Amino acid sequence: MYRTHTNGELRASNSNEKVTLSGWVQKTRNKGFMIWVDLRDRYGITQLIFDEERTSKEVMAIASKLGREFVIQVNGTVIVRESKNVNIPTGDIEILVSEVTILNESLTPPFTIENETDGGEDLRMKYRYLDIRRKPVRENLIFRHKVTMAVRNYLSEKGFVEIETPYLIKSTPEGARDFVVPSRMNAGQFYALPQSPQTFKQLLMVGGMDKYFQIVKCFRDEDLRADRQPEFTQIDCEMAFVEQEDILQTFECLTRHLLKEINGAEVAEFPRMTYDEAMKKYGNDKPDIRFGMEFGELNEVAQHKEFNVFNQAELVVGIAVPGGNVYTRKDIDNLIDWVKRPQIGALGMVYCRCNEDGSYKSSVDKFYDEQDLAKWASVTGAKAGDLICVLSGNTSKVRAQLSALRMEFAERLGLRKATEFAPLWVVDFPLLEWDEETQRYHAMHHPFTSPKPGQLALLATDPGAVKANAYDLVLNGNEIGGGSIRIHDKKTQALMFDYLGFTPEEAKAQFGFLMDAFQYGAPPHGGIAFGLDRLVAILGGQETIRDFIAFPKNNSGRDVMIDAPAPIDEAQLKELSLQLNLKS
Amino acid sequence: MYRTHTNGELRASNSNEKVTLSGWVQKTRNKGFMIWVDLRDRYGITQLIFDEERTSKEVMAIASKLGREFVIQVNGTVIVRESKNVNIPTGDIEILVSEVTILNESLTPPFTIENETDGGEDLRMKYRYLDIRRKPVRENLIFRHKVTMAVRNYLSEKGFVEIETPYLIKSTPEGARDFVVPSRMNAGQFYALPQSPQTFKQLLMVGGMDKYFQIVKCFRDEDLRADRQPEFTQIDCEMAFVEQEDILQTFECLTRHLLKEINGAEVAEFPRMTYDEAMKKYGNDKPDIRFGMEFGELNEVAQHKEFNVFNQAELVVGIAVPGGNVYTRKDIDNLIDWVKRPQIGALGMVYCRCNEDGSYKSSVDKFYDEQDLAKWASVTGAKAGDLICVLSGNTSKVRAQLSALRMEFAERLGLRKATEFAPLWVVDFPLLEWDEETQRYHAMHHPFTSPKPGQLALLATDPGAVKANAYDLVLNGNEIGGGSIRIHDKKTQALMFDYLGFTPEEAKAQFGFLMDAFQYGAPPHGGIAFGLDRLVAILGGQETIRDFIAFPKNNSGRDVMIDAPAPIDEAQLKELSLQLNLKS
Repeated sequence: MYRTHTNGELRASNSNEKVTLSGWVQKTRNKGFMIWVDLRDRYGITQLIFDEERTSKEVMAIASKLGREFVIQVNGTVIVRESKNVNIPTGDIEILVSEVTILNESLTPPFTIENETDGGEDLRMKYRYLDIRRKPVRENLIFRHKVTMAVRNYLSEKGFVEIETPYLIKSTPEGARDFVVPSRMNAGQFYALPQSPQTFKQLLMVGGMDKYFQIVKCFRDEDLRADRQPEFTQIDCEMAFVEQEDILQTFECLTRHLLKEINGAEVAEFPRMTYDEAMKKYGNDKPDIRFGMEFGELNEVAQHKEFNVFNQAELVVGIAVPGGNVYTRKDIDNLIDWVKRPQIGALGMVYCRCNEDGSYKSSVDKFYDEQDLAKWASVTGAKAGDLICVLSGNTSKVRAQLSALRMEFAERLGLRKATEFAPLWVVDFPLLEWDEETQRYHAMHHPFTSPKPGQLALLATDPGAVKANAYDLVLNGNEIGGGSIRIHDKKTQALMFDYLGFTPEEAKAQFGFLMDAFQYGAPPHGGIAFGLDRLVAILGGQETIRDFIAFPKNNSGRDVMIDAPAPIDEAQLKELSLQLNLKS
Repeated sequence: MYRTHTNGELRASNSNEKVTLSGWVQKTRNKGFMIWVDLRDRYGITQLIFDEERTSKEVMAIASKLGREFVIQVNGTVIVRESKNVNIPTGDIEILVSEVTILNESLTPPFTIENETDGGEDLRMKYRYLDIRRKPVRENLIFRHKVTMAVRNYLSEKGFVEIETPYLIKSTPEGARDFVVPSRMNAGQFYALPQSPQTFKQLLMVGGMDKYFQIVKCFRDEDLRADRQPEFTQIDCEMAFVEQEDILQTFECLTRHLLKEINGAEVAEFPRMTYDEAMKKYGNDKPDIRFGMEFGELNEVAQHKEFNVFNQAELVVGIAVPGGNVYTRKDIDNLIDWVKRPQIGALGMVYCRCNEDGSYKSSVDKFYDEQDLAKWASVTGAKAGDLICVLSGNTSKVRAQLSALRMEFAERLGLRKATEFAPLWVVDFPLLEWDEETQRYHAMHHPFTSPKPGQLALLATDPGAVKANAYDLVLNGNEIGGGSIRIHDKKTQALMFDYLGFTPEEAKAQFGFLMDAFQYGAPPHGGIAFGLDRLVAILGGQETIRDFIAFPKNNSGRDVMIDAPAPIDEAQLKELSLQLNLKS
C-alpha cells in the first residue's frame, strides 16, 4: 500500500500514529543535521522531518538528495510541531520519517509548481501535466466536476433523462463549419462531428422522452477567436409540452440552484428584458447589469444645433461615467484613442464634464450651451462629478462601440465584481438577421426556432421584424445559455427553410428525417443549451475558459502537448479513399 | 400550460379534480355514443372518456376523428371508473373530457407503437424516434441514465473527479484503426478521435489528479462485428499511488454497489482466477461461471489406446453436459454438425453417454472400455444421466471450440439466467500475444501495461511467458471491464516500445509527450475501463447493446435514420486540402 493517509488529512489528533504517505517533493530545506521536506499531493501538503538524531544515516542520505517533484513514499510517525504553520490545515503536525523510498525521480521542471508560477502560457500548455499539479489549475478542474455533478443531480431529480446522442452524424452546410470524419467503410462519404445535438434532441421529443439533457462535447471548425475552442462542452436540454415560460422557469431554477450550491449566492427572480430593450439600453444583447451606465439616446436633445456630426448621425447616444470628472484631459484623450482603435472603430468621442458645482463643460461648447448639456445629463442620468461620453453614427455600429466603452469603464472602475452575480433573461430575439456578406437573411438562433405566434405572415413583408420564441440567459455580461421554442410541424419548418434560401431538395436532403418525424405526431417542444466551459469560468469568478479545461487547444486549434493535429500515413489516406490536395 | 399532470400519476384520490393532460393517442374505441381514448406519454397511459350525454357535440366530433399517435391536449375531470383496469397504475380513474385540442396530427406510423411491435429492425432504426416511443426502448434509455448516475455519484463520493479529455487528438497506428478528422487550419494534418483517453488519463496521474474517471465516447474504425458500434461509451478510470489490489478492491466495490442499487442483487466477494486457469477450465478468458461444465483435460486417460485422433492431438478435452443422456442419436448428430460449422471449426466430436445404471456408451467404444470411460467421467465430473462431449486438437483452437459448445449447451439448458449475476476477476494476463499475421508480438492489453515485477528480464528470452499486471472484470461471461497497472518510468516504457517493434523515432513521434512526462515525477498508477453499453445491457438482463443506445448505427456503420455518412461538397473538401481518391 502506497499510503495510509493523504497529505491533507493529518492533524494533531493523529499524534504518535505510524503513517505511510506518498507524494511529490514540493520543497526541501537542508540544515545538514536536519532536513525538512514539504510533501504534496492533490489534497494538501504535509511537512516531513529528517533529523540526524532520530533518523538513520541511510535515510538522511536519501533525504539529502531529494529534488523538486521527486515522487517519494515515506513511513514515519506523526508528531506535533513546535512551530506551527497556520497557513495549511496540516500545519500542526509533521512526520518524523523512518523510511523513505524514491518512487520516481524528476528532472527540474520547466517552471515552478507554485500558485503563482514563472511559466508562460506556451510552456504551461506544453507541459500541461505539470501545470495541473499547480493548485489553481487543479482546483479549477475539481470545481468543474462539482458544477457538472450539481447540474446532473438537479436535472435528474427533476425527471430529466441524460441520453447520449451520436458523435458521428451528417454534415450540414448551414451554420458554422463542421469538422468531418471520412468513412472508410463508405468510400467517398463523411460523417460530421456535431455542432450541437439539436436535431437529435428534437427527435427525442418526437420520441416522447419529454425531458432530456446531456452534458456533451460539441465541435465547430471556426477560425478561433481568443478564448474559443474547436471542441467545447454544452449542457444541452430539451422539453416537450412546454411554452417559453416553462423553459424559463425550469432553467432559472437550475441556475439559481447552482449559484446557491456552488457559490452560496442567493439570487432573486431573474429580471427579463427584450432584445430590443437590451440593445437600446446597453447596445448589447448580453448586457452586464451588475452596474448601471445605461445608454441615454440624445438625438432629441443634441440634433437641434449646428453640430453636423450629430445632425447627420442616425443615433447620438451617451453614458454617464460615475465619478468620471476626475479624468484629466490626457486621460480623456487616451479614451478617445481607445474608441478610435480599429477593434472599436469610433470616429471620435464627444464628452461633457459634470462639475461638482452643477456647471457643465463639454468638448463641443461652441455648439451647445449649459441648458443643452443639462438635458444630456438628464437623459444619461449623469450627476455632479460624472463624465458624459457621447458617440454618434450608424445605430448598430455606435451601439456596439458605446457598449465596448461601457465595459471598458466598468473594468477600469472595478464594477465587474467576480463574486457578484447578476443573471438576466433576454427574450424576444429577432427570428432572422440580415447577412451583409451573402445578402440574405440567416436564422439568428437556428432554422428550427419558431416565430412568435401570429408573426408567420410578417415573414413575407418584413422578415427582419419577425420576433422569435428565443431567449438567452445572460450572467454578468456573458451569454451562458440560449434556446428557443422549436417549430414542430412540417409545413412551418418547410416554409422556414424556404425563407432561409434552401431549395425543397436541399431541405429534404439535409433535414428530411426531421420533417418526416414532424409528420408522426411531434409534440410542441423547446429547449436551451448552456456553454459549460463559460458557465464554470463565471461561477469560478474567472474570465478565461481555458483555465477550466484540462487539455485546451491553442488559437490555431493545436494541442501543443501531444502535437496534434499531425500528418497521417499514406496508407491511412488510401484506406479512406483520399489524397492530399495541398496548395503549393 | 400544456398539462397539469402526466399520464402516469392520477389516482382515485384525484377524483373530481379538473386536470389538463397532453400526450399521444395510443388507441381509441368508438361506440358512437361513447368514445374512449388511451392517452400516452413517457409516464404512462390515462383513459379519456367522451360521452354524448356529458360531452359537447363539437368535442365528440373532434374525438371521433383522432387517429393513432395524434398529439392532443385535453381538459377534463377525473372520475372513478366503473370497470377498473388493474394492469395500469391509473386504472382506477378516467378523464371525462370537456375540451380537446389537436396539437399535431400523425400519419399512420410504419409499425405499431406497442411493447411487441410488428416493425422489423430496419424499419425501427429508420424511424427510431417512433421506436423510442415504445415502452421497452424508452425504459432501456431511462435505465441507462440510472446506471450512469449511480456510477457518477458513487465515484464522486469516493473522491474521484470526472475530467473531460479532448476528442480531437493524434492518430497512432498502434492498436485498432483510428477515425481521423482533417484539420482545415493545419492543411494536410489530421486529428484522430480517441479510441480511449488512455494517454490523457495517465497524464492526469502525472498531473497529480490521483483519482480520475470519465464517462466518455470512444471511437474505433473497425469492420463491425455483430453488436459492435463505431462509437461506444466507456467508464474510464485511473488512480495513482495504487497497486493492482487497490484497483480490484475499488472497482469491485463499485460493481457490487451497482448490482445492489440497480438490480437489488447482493453479491459476495468476487472470485478471482488467473488467465491460465480460465483458459484451462473454460477455454475462455471471460468465462460465464453462473454454471459449471468445467473442462476436463483427458490426455492422460485417453491417449493410451489406438485412437489416433486423440493420440495425435495436443489436447483432448471434454465437458459433462448435465442430464445430456436424454439427447437422441439425432440430437447428437446435430450437435456434431454444430461444432463442425465453419464458425466453430471442430473436425468432429466424440461423446460418451453416462447411463442411469452407471454404465457408459461412447462413440469410440471400439477403442475405449468401461474403465477408460469411467475415468473420463471422473475427470469431467460427469454423473449418471450426463453426456460427455470430447474435442481434440491444437490446444488453443480446441479450447475455443469447446468453450463455444459449453455456451451453446448453457443456452439450450437455460443456465444463463438474466437475473443471476456471477462476477469474476481474471488476473495475470500475458503481457504480449503472438500475432500470426504480422509474425510478431503485440501488447495484449496495450503498450502502457506494466509487466509483473521481476519479469522484465524474461522479455528477452521468453516474451510469451511474461505476465502483466493486467486484469479483466467478467460478468456473466462478458468482459465488462479491463485494465492494468501502467508503466510509469521512461526506461521501461522505451524498452516496451522497442519490444513491440517501434523504432526509437516512432516511439518518440507518437508517444514522446508521455515519455517526457514520465521524466518529471510520474507516480505509480493504474486503472480500468468499463464498456458502458455492455454493462448496461447485462444489468438490464439483455444481450444486445443496440437496445440501450438511443441512436445506434447498423453493421455498415451507417445511421439509417439521418442517412449518414454522406458525400460532402467539393468546396468543403477543397477547404480541407483534400480530394477523393475512389477506386473505379
